[in-house]
Amino acid sequence: MKAFFNPKTVAIIGASKNIKKLGHVIMKNFMDFNFEGEIYPVNPKEKEILGKKCYNSVLNIKEKIDLAVVLVPPECSNNVVEQCVKKNIPAVVLITAGYKETGAIGITKELELKRIIKNTKTRVIGPNCIGLFDPYARTDTLFLPDYKLKRPSQGEIAFISQSGAFGAAILDWAATQGIGISHFVSYGNRVDVDDIDLIEYFMKDKKTKAILIYLEGPRQGRALYDCIKKHSSKKPIIILKAGKYKSGSNAAASHTGSLAGSYTVFKSAITQAGAIEAETSEDMFDYARALAHQPKPKGKNVAVITNGGGFGVLSADALEKYGFNLPQFEKQTISKISEIMPGYSTIHNPLDIVGDADVNRYEVTIKAALKDKNIDAIIVCILLQTAPLDPDIVDLISSVNESKKKPMLIVSAGGEYTQILLKSLENEGIPAYPSPERAVRSLKALLKKSNN
Amino acid sequence: MKAFFNPKTVAIIGASKNIKKLGHVIMKNFMDFNFEGEIYPVNPKEKEILGKKCYNSVLNIKEKIDLAVVLVPPECSNNVVEQCVKKNIPAVVLITAGYKETGAIGITKELELKRIIKNTKTRVIGPNCIGLFDPYARTDTLFLPDYKLKRPSQGEIAFISQSGAFGAAILDWAATQGIGISHFVSYGNRVDVDDIDLIEYFMKDKKTKAILIYLEGPRQGRALYDCIKKHSSKKPIIILKAGKYKSGSNAAASHTGSLAGSYTVFKSAITQAGAIEAETSEDMFDYARALAHQPKPKGKNVAVITNGGGFGVLSADALEKYGFNLPQFEKQTISKISEIMPGYSTIHNPLDIVGDADVNRYEVTIKAALKDKNIDAIIVCILLQTAPLDPDIVDLISSVNESKKKPMLIVSAGGEYTQILLKSLENEGIPAYPSPERAVRSLKALLKKSNN
Repeated sequence: MKAFFNPKTVAIIGASKNIKKLGHVIMKNFMDFNFEGEIYPVNPKEKEILGKKCYNSVLNIKEKIDLAVVLVPPECSNNVVEQCVKKNIPAVVLITAGYKETGAIGITKELELKRIIKNTKTRVIGPNCIGLFDPYARTDTLFLPDYKLKRPSQGEIAFISQSGAFGAAILDWAATQGIGISHFVSYGNRVDVDDIDLIEYFMKDKKTKAILIYLEGPRQGRALYDCIKKHSSKKPIIILKAGKYKSGSNAAASHTGSLAGSYTVFKSAITQAGAIEAETSEDMFDYARALAHQPKPKGKNVAVITNGGGFGVLSADALEKYGFNLPQFEKQTISKISEIMPGYSTIHNPLDIVGDADVNRYEVTIKAALKDKNIDAIIVCILLQTAPLDPDIVDLISSVNESKKKPMLIVSAGGEYTQILLKSLENEGIPAYPSPERAVRSLKALLKKSNN
Repeated sequence: MKAFFNPKTVAIIGASKNIKKLGHVIMKNFMDFNFEGEIYPVNPKEKEILGKKCYNSVLNIKEKIDLAVVLVPPECSNNVVEQCVKKNIPAVVLITAGYKETGAIGITKELELKRIIKNTKTRVIGPNCIGLFDPYARTDTLFLPDYKLKRPSQGEIAFISQSGAFGAAILDWAATQGIGISHFVSYGNRVDVDDIDLIEYFMKDKKTKAILIYLEGPRQGRALYDCIKKHSSKKPIIILKAGKYKSGSNAAASHTGSLAGSYTVFKSAITQAGAIEAETSEDMFDYARALAHQPKPKGKNVAVITNGGGFGVLSADALEKYGFNLPQFEKQTISKISEIMPGYSTIHNPLDIVGDADVNRYEVTIKAALKDKNIDAIIVCILLQTAPLDPDIVDLISSVNESKKKPMLIVSAGGEYTQILLKSLENEGIPAYPSPERAVRSLKALLKKSNN
């Protein structure tokens, strides 16, 4: 598996000079991304592509190849994989479509593919997939240009998506939000490498702190359960199950050929095994960002600090809805906070530090709440539009959150200026949410985190 | 009330030359926004502000004044309002804080203010408020600079927010999403003009197609119920109630002094009266955009069309969760769609037109679904990142949606490129949502729309 995520040499089989072909786009991706190893284009019709010597077969490359990306037409894709096996290539990403998703002939082709790789050292991601994106290894088989699909920066969330297009759209969204990832994999028809292989690998991977999975149906339900159970105490595993009900699972069957099975059974199994369910596509990264970067709260007592009363009220509503408490602060907290608040203020939780709050008022109140024994977690609402609040608030929040003794989640809504500041917070591992509801749901997910 | 939303002459009482003062920021807002009427700064210490002759009292302005914006210190704000009454100014926005929110002295001040305007022709929005933003009248009393707080363009949603800071943050967000509004009002302590006055006015206002209210507590519960009941069949009224539970309603009491009352009673009353409840802050504009621009579906039968299978599966899940059906298409629909789909495809609902779908494939399938008698509403998932889909998709969706015989909601997730195209769709009155869940919740809200 390591060769998928840390290759030193890559063969791009089906590379092309034609800028409209995937074989060109992917080769260019690797070069633009400054892939540090060696790239070997393979195409019998060309002598050179993008300045690199082109080979007529992967078998003619003398050097050892760690990773082969295959995007030849379906007529010869199995032959090419056979060559990869012959050359002892440990990792193959088979982009080519035209397998079981296309009907009877494709199914036969897929069975043949399975035979080809059986009992060999070659592992295959695919076929009919968009493959890999890895900001550390600098590999990128997503065949969409950067202007349409932004790539996320280096981060700590590994993202596995059974649906390629869904995964790509979410990556694009994440990139624009400043959310980083450690690795992205979409395995398409999943002829070989599956969720279990990937979970096992990412559990050992030092860059990954949380694993996020979009799953229509597991290939081996029982084995997935065992795998999650074995590992979920080490790193959080978040699963969005698609194909929950009748219409959805019919759709999943025709989409990825997955037997979705009973949602109720699946849900209770993965939850029991220690995975955390994301109910919606927005929950996925909402939860993953909290789980990757913030500690588990010791209890359900939450403080809300806000410079906009409305967000305080909505946060209190959401906390109560999801079973949290808003205890009063300890006496010493109240007296500390009183010192820096306007005379007429009363010190409640939610704590409204009002519209003229500056960075200092946030600093005093957050630090006081972090020390307060009545408080297990803090939701900080920041309306960044107000006049007295300057961009230093980002540094303040990062520095008070460094100890990570209590989880801290941010609520902040706004436009471009706000988004720029929230991206900086995101880079520091402090998750920000556009609504109190989403922050509180994520805090609830954090309650399910293991203590490790 | 009309003078608030269509003033020809505005006095800015407390205007200032000091660029750090609100009196400067607001005067500059009006000028930068190209307010078409006449602006009269009032400040006894200045002769001229921003090139305009400055008056030492509003009483010294000879011309009739439609709207006075008051931001003098609290020591003299009641006196100034008294002068406005004397000059027969019909509309006063009283920004000045320091009233009941500050304790006993403030409460006395607020009672005095009530006496001053009682039985006069002067109506007051405020005090302690951020006031108005109106892209048609080109009035703007929001005292935050444009780089921090973007202003929305002209649209058809009237937005009333009891919380100023919350309202401003949401406006900023809406502007960045390309969501337009007709009018924005935040009335602060609500000494005079309240939700009922505003609903009555916006019901008659031709620019407004839906009314959105963030409310911590009504001033007169029974009267609000009657008002909603009287009008809700004409234009949709969407209400986000804050202060639902104990902690939240305590917070509301200290925030806007509202007695939140029983949420259960409130919820059943407003729903019975025909308002539509937004449960979260994201629901608000999600629902309003659908309700302002899309027709009520005739039934619960929904078609899903997608170029990404995963979004189809998730949409089917969400539809079933919220009580919708996904019927099969009529025979003639299936045969029409079959003509343009790849050979191996089967025509189901959700309809996966697969990753190589171009604008034409969307056109044929959407038009077929619009004609299909089995279908009441259409959810169109568009992954704009794919290679064959060019920006013409925006024009196509706009043109097929022109008849508005069946509601059409878009699901599309992505980054900058996607957001640019979705903004164009938004301008055409076609609401786009970042997740299937949010589109389906909004479709559910559309079911509650009146037929008018």
